[in-house]
Amino acid sequence: MRNTLGGKGANLAEMSRLGVPVPAGFTISTGVCNEFYARGRKIPARVKREALDALAKVERIMEAGFGDVERPLLVSVRSGARVSMPGMMDTVLNLGLNDRTVEGLAEQSGDRRFAFDSYRRFIQMYGDVVLGVDHDLFEQALERMKRERGVEGDTELSVDDLLQLVGEYKAIVSDATGRPFPERPLDQLWGAVAAVFGSWRIPRAETYRRINSIPSDWGTAVNVQAMVFGNLGEDSATGVAFTRDPSTGDPRFFGEYLPQAQGEDVVAGIRTPHAITRADRVPGAPPSMQEVLPDCYRELRRVAESLERHFGEMQDLEFTVQRGKLWMLQTRTGKRTARAAVKIAVDMAREKVIDRRTAVMRVEPSQLDQLLHPMLDAASAPPPAGQGLPASPGAVSGRAVFSAEAAEEAAARGEKVILVRRETSPEDIGGMNAAQGILTALGGMTSHAAVVARGMGKCCIAGCSTLQVDSEGRCGELGGIELKEGDVLTLDGSSGRVYLGEVATVQAPLGNDFRTLMRWADQFRRMRVRANADTPADAEQAVEFGAEGIGLCRTEHMFFQPERLLAVRRMILADSAEERAEALEEILPMQRDDFVGIFRALKGRPVTVRLLDPPLHEFLPQSDAELTRMAAELGVSEAELRRKVAGLHEFNPMLGHRGCRLAITYPEIYEEQARAIAEAACVCAEEGVRTRPEIMVPLTSSAEEMAVLRELIDRTVRDVLRKHRRRIAYQVGTMIEVPRAALVADKLAELSDFFSFGTNDLTQTTMALSRDDSGRFLPEYVERELMPEDPFVSLDISGVGRLVHLAVESGRRARPDLKLGICGEHGGDPRSIQFCEQNGLDYVSCSPFRVPIARLAAAQAAIVEGAV
Amino acid sequence: MRNTLGGKGANLAEMSRLGVPVPAGFTISTGVCNEFYARGRKIPARVKREALDALAKVERIMEAGFGDVERPLLVSVRSGARVSMPGMMDTVLNLGLNDRTVEGLAEQSGDRRFAFDSYRRFIQMYGDVVLGVDHDLFEQALERMKRERGVEGDTELSVDDLLQLVGEYKAIVSDATGRPFPERPLDQLWGAVAAVFGSWRIPRAETYRRINSIPSDWGTAVNVQAMVFGNLGEDSATGVAFTRDPSTGDPRFFGEYLPQAQGEDVVAGIRTPHAITRADRVPGAPPSMQEVLPDCYRELRRVAESLERHFGEMQDLEFTVQRGKLWMLQTRTGKRTARAAVKIAVDMAREKVIDRRTAVMRVEPSQLDQLLHPMLDAASAPPPAGQGLPASPGAVSGRAVFSAEAAEEAAARGEKVILVRRETSPEDIGGMNAAQGILTALGGMTSHAAVVARGMGKCCIAGCSTLQVDSEGRCGELGGIELKEGDVLTLDGSSGRVYLGEVATVQAPLGNDFRTLMRWADQFRRMRVRANADTPADAEQAVEFGAEGIGLCRTEHMFFQPERLLAVRRMILADSAEERAEALEEILPMQRDDFVGIFRALKGRPVTVRLLDPPLHEFLPQSDAELTRMAAELGVSEAELRRKVAGLHEFNPMLGHRGCRLAITYPEIYEEQARAIAEAACVCAEEGVRTRPEIMVPLTSSAEEMAVLRELIDRTVRDVLRKHRRRIAYQVGTMIEVPRAALVADKLAELSDFFSFGTNDLTQTTMALSRDDSGRFLPEYVERELMPEDPFVSLDISGVGRLVHLAVESGRRARPDLKLGICGEHGGDPRSIQFCEQNGLDYVSCSPFRVPIARLAAAQAAIVEGAV
Repeated sequence: MRNTLGGKGANLAEMSRLGVPVPAGFTISTGVCNEFYARGRKIPARVKREALDALAKVERIMEAGFGDVERPLLVSVRSGARVSMPGMMDTVLNLGLNDRTVEGLAEQSGDRRFAFDSYRRFIQMYGDVVLGVDHDLFEQALERMKRERGVEGDTELSVDDLLQLVGEYKAIVSDATGRPFPERPLDQLWGAVAAVFGSWRIPRAETYRRINSIPSDWGTAVNVQAMVFGNLGEDSATGVAFTRDPSTGDPRFFGEYLPQAQGEDVVAGIRTPHAITRADRVPGAPPSMQEVLPDCYRELRRVAESLERHFGEMQDLEFTVQRGKLWMLQTRTGKRTARAAVKIAVDMAREKVIDRRTAVMRVEPSQLDQLLHPMLDAASAPPPAGQGLPASPGAVSGRAVFSAEAAEEAAARGEKVILVRRETSPEDIGGMNAAQGILTALGGMTSHAAVVARGMGKCCIAGCSTLQVDSEGRCGELGGIELKEGDVLTLDGSSGRVYLGEVATVQAPLGNDFRTLMRWADQFRRMRVRANADTPADAEQAVEFGAEGIGLCRTEHMFFQPERLLAVRRMILADSAEERAEALEEILPMQRDDFVGIFRALKGRPVTVRLLDPPLHEFLPQSDAELTRMAAELGVSEAELRRKVAGLHEFNPMLGHRGCRLAITYPEIYEEQARAIAEAACVCAEEGVRTRPEIMVPLTSSAEEMAVLRELIDRTVRDVLRKHRRRIAYQVGTMIEVPRAALVADKLAELSDFFSFGTNDLTQTTMALSRDDSGRFLPEYVERELMPEDPFVSLDISGVGRLVHLAVESGRRARPDLKLGICGEHGGDPRSIQFCEQNGLDYVSCSPFRVPIARLAAAQAAIVEGAV
Repeated sequence: MRNTLGGKGANLAEMSRLGVPVPAGFTISTGVCNEFYARGRKIPARVKREALDALAKVERIMEAGFGDVERPLLVSVRSGARVSMPGMMDTVLNLGLNDRTVEGLAEQSGDRRFAFDSYRRFIQMYGDVVLGVDHDLFEQALERMKRERGVEGDTELSVDDLLQLVGEYKAIVSDATGRPFPERPLDQLWGAVAAVFGSWRIPRAETYRRINSIPSDWGTAVNVQAMVFGNLGEDSATGVAFTRDPSTGDPRFFGEYLPQAQGEDVVAGIRTPHAITRADRVPGAPPSMQEVLPDCYRELRRVAESLERHFGEMQDLEFTVQRGKLWMLQTRTGKRTARAAVKIAVDMAREKVIDRRTAVMRVEPSQLDQLLHPMLDAASAPPPAGQGLPASPGAVSGRAVFSAEAAEEAAARGEKVILVRRETSPEDIGGMNAAQGILTALGGMTSHAAVVARGMGKCCIAGCSTLQVDSEGRCGELGGIELKEGDVLTLDGSSGRVYLGEVATVQAPLGNDFRTLMRWADQFRRMRVRANADTPADAEQAVEFGAEGIGLCRTEHMFFQPERLLAVRRMILADSAEERAEALEEILPMQRDDFVGIFRALKGRPVTVRLLDPPLHEFLPQSDAELTRMAAELGVSEAELRRKVAGLHEFNPMLGHRGCRLAITYPEIYEEQARAIAEAACVCAEEGVRTRPEIMVPLTSSAEEMAVLRELIDRTVRDVLRKHRRRIAYQVGTMIEVPRAALVADKLAELSDFFSFGTNDLTQTTMALSRDDSGRFLPEYVERELMPEDPFVSLDISGVGRLVHLAVESGRRARPDLKLGICGEHGGDPRSIQFCEQNGLDYVSCSPFRVPIARLAAAQAAIVEGAV
């Protein structure tokens, strides 16, 4: 009944319907909201009458009277639309208090301080939320009072102080509104109800609805519910409980409580709560609830069991015992660790509480990350020395080094190191590979360091803003503390925290429950899951995690290895096509061996190889010393070399001479790569290893480009196959990573066997958002909700997604058997994976360590979208 | 009958139908092409029969016989599809020659050399085009022969040499094809016809059709036409003529001819042709055709007049007189200068040959550029010293200077200078303004230099690759010649040519015909034409050229002026919003005055002001010396300043922290600008000057951004208006220059009064193509037809255009009264203007000097699209 009662009201009604003891209350339905506006912002008389009837029932159930001086009934008033919506009125508590009922509350609670503090807070909340009085005015009065009394905390104010403050607060209200604070509880109630309805149309809510296409005639409901108190004597208490252990998932009832306390006392952590069950009580600790309030305890367990059974899900409960009577204040799905989530899902399916489909839906895929990487041992961690972005999970320790070479040297000596850089570049790959983890001062979640590290399954913290790096001086500074080469650091890639010294880590074994859940997930999955992997080692890891192919094998690194780099640089600086071809000829056998290694690891599964993508200047040295060395190696003058290097400079390399544009200018490069791939396939065939190469052209933006390059690749591959007398089925396709490619997808589809959406670059170009430069404003955008999420983490569905959708539609129309996949970072993000399922993609591809996440997310998407 | 006869065949038939004497011929229709393929690439017997009948008629008309030894009929065979298509067979001339008929040709022409040279060329052409023999083999034989004879040119070979070459050519053909060269004329004919049909399906033609969506069943026609010769005696001749003077447009018959010559002799320029009319014959020159061949002359004039009347257009005619009989070989619309085009169109409309609508259609809008800028006096120009891109038209001379400061200093002394730079940046604006013209070594047609120069109506040549600039040394090199400060250069911005020394220029007055044509154009135009102008001077110029408003007033320059720059830099480096606001407060009065100046110039026409767009680092100094100076001026340490400047560095500034993103981070900036605009409008109102400010937010990519900024702008403007007690209608809208903005246009439309398509940046992002970096590959793309045109000059309709279309559709759907315009460079490009008309835009905006072009192009687009 969410449409009529709103989300909050429907949930409360559901508990009540189950016979669970919830404080009595009623909901004024969403339909009344329209009526309210139609009558010039007046609550219809009929509604008031019905509300009064309902209130009378509440009084009976709660054995209290609204406005009653001795046993005053206090209520909360909350808004509740069909969907949660920012900008609307939230909550008013303790409504019903006035100068007389406050005495009743004091009497009942035996705590005048509590009663008057509640009263003061109520006036402030009502004044602010309902009457629109500036919040600061109350705060200022409070501060003044504390200053005058010479105290620091609110709790140090005496009952008389509070009484005086109540007077001041009322004066503030009447000054600001021109009317006295409403003393009559019913006036308070109607005021609060009208304020909830009124908040439906404040500008912020209107804007939110417009942006999110929420019809303005949906309206909001109003929830009115009795307050209960856990501090009304020795037979009162309050607490929280879980139906299963949220940390391990073990099926045991578990919780904490405080006698004579209010809910916020448990949350605030001022008093240490006691165990609920006798079993959990440690020797010497105060008695458990099971011992002190055995009846309430029994009822609580019974309620807990019935709620878990009803919702088919582990519950997190809040309760209050008021004078020996148990009241459930809230039940909700309990948060849990990844380990617990997996265990609970599998257990519940085995207990037949839920079916397997539901079990698969129960685990948040991104949580699995916790299980796949070693974790920091929380118990032994000191306070962190720095905080960056959690770019790639894992927990590692090692000695700080400030250059890739130092990392490689140390690794060669068998040392564990952390590579600390301002930012990383492709030349650092060797060092990144050699290091345990990577820490950078700049860059975001999809910076070079972050992407490469995730690809390697290597721990990385990027954009640690308090880090300063002096790579020449082999030192740095972290939050003001000096760092020297050799200092030990520990990185927690899951939280982005950096520690000085070594912190112990624990490797969590995956366990049988995990394997069971993944097996079930695979049964529901429609899309294939591939991995992004560039080396045989990565490829093997990916297969182990369940990858069904390689969706993106980048080939840059094949040009970066030291023994090849000189030939590559000769190729780049060549003055003729012949010179270029000659230099490439040198590299070919090595690249062929690379491909053979990858094909062997995949054992006949498809491998999508992306031809060379980065701008050529990335392969050239940047520092003066390196330039001098290179000039000597190549036998050219330094000035000449410097001129050529300068000539390759680009203002916006992201939009420059790279990807397939290189091959339009220098066809020899892709020809060499196509040959290396085809020859590797022939070598494998010789060994009896099946191969399914898929050759992928990057940065395509027009059919004309694709026509030229497809012809080049087909001709080259066929030549090789003919020479080796082999028939190997291969495919040629394109990345869709430029908006224009998506817009001319129909034409591209005619020339492509497959599309692979390169959503990293597609996001950058579609949003005009450089991932390397966005650090200065993107976090603010996300924080201020100008963007729903970091678009490099989760696909921007209404922008980039619309382009993907267009390309899928027109591509499939032009070529119904077109294979469609995604190979951007989004291929490992559950929300993006659901989008891929909705759009009928054939596979997603992500870094090896995210393969299990993608498998689970793909299964969930298939279930949600009704594909299975 | 273009669909049946193809383009070429239909045109020939049209002339014939008019009774114009064209050499007889026939066309095998396009339908036969399909039949040809259906029958396994065979010409149907019926078609052969009909062709033979037609051939017999040709023989009768031409009084010659196909294969006849004495009076041989020779024919040309040409392909001709509905639309012109690259990759298909072009032309075979002189078909019908063999060892016997060549003697007849020799006899008739009295020139054996001519006859055997024709024969040799025919074998080569037929061998290459019809039989697929490698062209190089013939060339090699010819080269060998010339080497052996010790001669350089083909014409030095004797008849015997040619006879021997004919033998060698035939041997080449039989070696390559395994068959003798076809001696029988009919075999030659069927072979050529089959080759034309066969060329319909060669891969290049297929690819072209696929990309251009040309159905493959359209087929091609084949045109067979008799050859005629102008060198068969004294009563033979050949020539070209124009029905009006192509240079001035004067209505006088005009042309040149050569007696006893072939068409190519006139074109090749080996012999100097004679005047056709007696009036044009200069004293001492050979007699005119009017005198030598009076009958043919009279017929030619008659034909010329009837063709001009028939086509209603000035004609360029080719003719041959064979033995006293006039044959028209071609008639086509004559090319003409801009001046002539305008005069002819206006004259013809006044002569009632065409109507005004047609007259408006007759002038190529981009030609008007020639009339609007001073032109180089072609007569006195030396050979150019360098060649760059014709970035902004005009012809100017001045002394070379190598820095903006030097340009400003020289201008202050009253000197005319050419600013020579590697590339320009916003800091050079003062110098660019002071210079007569700008010459850069780097950058394309839409580089900073090009865009700003066009905006200023200033001559500019960009990307002059043979130029090297050493700005510190105040010197350079142009094509190997040293350049020093003070050397005089002349730039021809219309051709991209650079000259050493001064070359005279002439300013072409616009004239009455021009004004008349523009008045007519304005009557047909639907779209409004605005100008991009940043200063009162530019704005006045724009209004003078007929601009109906300002479509883009950039505000960067208002921050760059020396007396403001220090405050701007203080603003950028400020640590708090207050400091920023304080610095902005200093600039405000100056900017308000700028706006007042522009509003006054526009006299109530709308002015679209774009709020600050460039990344802040553009306002900071780059050189060490400037940094030192600035640190002193700002009173901060140099190290601190250097750190801040480095912190603003971006890898891809195009996709970085700029446009409205600046205002999300620093709202004070747009607030200050909005205030300056609103206050300026109030100042104008005081003076009785009406204003229609349109405030434009750049680089918007989401509705969330727009909501925040619209609120900020509205609030600020309303505050000012309230304070001044004024009611001024203003609008707030957004640029659409990020693909995502186009994709979420419906949401943006709800928050915008207008959209202005910033197609410069939209092209960069949609195509992932940096205009500053594309110089290394874009020219090759255009040359190899991988792109139809430079997308920064003419809108990429299938990519960028599709996004514009999406945005227009969804924007208008969300808000039917949404005003739509374009303010990229494309706003002055006729093809792009037509696209704007098709998409129902309300206006185009371009640089002031292109306003007349845009007015004419908009009128033509309205006519073509049937809007008027």
